[in-house]
Amino acid sequence: MHKRVITALVNDNIGVLNRFSGIVSRAKTNMASITIAQTTCENISRITMVLEVEDEKTARHIINQLNNQIDVLEIRDITDESHLERELALVQIHSPIEKRHEVMAIMGPFRGQIVDVAESDIVIQVTGTIEKVEAFLELIKPYGIKRIARTGISGFTRFADSESRL
Amino acid sequence: MHKRVITALVNDNIGVLNRFSGIVSRAKTNMASITIAQTTCENISRITMVLEVEDEKTARHIINQLNNQIDVLEIRDITDESHLERELALVQIHSPIEKRHEVMAIMGPFRGQIVDVAESDIVIQVTGTIEKVEAFLELIKPYGIKRIARTGISGFTRFADSESRL
Repeated sequence: MHKRVITALVNDNIGVLNRFSGIVSRAKTNMASITIAQTTCENISRITMVLEVEDEKTARHIINQLNNQIDVLEIRDITDESHLERELALVQIHSPIEKRHEVMAIMGPFRGQIVDVAESDIVIQVTGTIEKVEAFLELIKPYGIKRIARTGISGFTRFADSESRL
Repeated sequence: MHKRVITALVNDNIGVLNRFSGIVSRAKTNMASITIAQTTCENISRITMVLEVEDEKTARHIINQLNNQIDVLEIRDITDESHLERELALVQIHSPIEKRHEVMAIMGPFRGQIVDVAESDIVIQVTGTIEKVEAFLELIKPYGIKRIARTGISGFTRFADSESRL
């Protein structure tokens, strides 16, 4: 199993989402995350999917199928290209006042930010690649993660040629 | 039209995603964004959707339908509850060296970070609520946005009761 990062520009996000999830599901492939959000162009959304595929052939098959969809303007597997990817996670951690300095010491190198505080809990925001966010979660886990909200990654290639917006 | 923020914990993200998008689509409602990502619990994912609904009745109808889905563990409209929501955006901006200080002056108050630099472009990462990200995009637009990748928001309620993880 390895992860592939697929990014697409699509017309109208609802019907497309249905077909994307259908195609991935029929290929018996796990979708680790998906993000869809509007771009600055009216009626165009960007989709970023992380697929856990058996092999590259499956990934290519899925992309070909998605590419045939009428509302897909552009689609590309950017895993092996130089690209930027970032996700955001909100993590509520059990953190009574006497343990808080330890939690903050872990958070520091990840440039985490405290976005909410309660008596025995704090909520930390971290951003980064999947690997970075997972490294943070691994280190912070022993303190007790109460809730977590991750967006999943979004991103694009570095130095795109002028023909492509992916 | 007003925006509703719906958050859910679900088993297995693929089949569920299909049904979520089907229900929203049949209710003729626009999905401004959706994020799905794994939580720390095996096989449980968190979905956060932003719907643009006609009225609250439509929102309630959609939530009731989603709630009947077998893989939905919990679902809640958190729009009117005190909650945390954050999204991340990567924005590639036309920014020749002589204009870069202006772009950085706009970015500063939003705590943006430069995550990539090329000769005439920079890529800025901003995080925040939908409103904050959109305020940044509005201010930076005159400089020329070349590409944008937004994750869409994820989040949870503040001070959740111990029964709920939403």
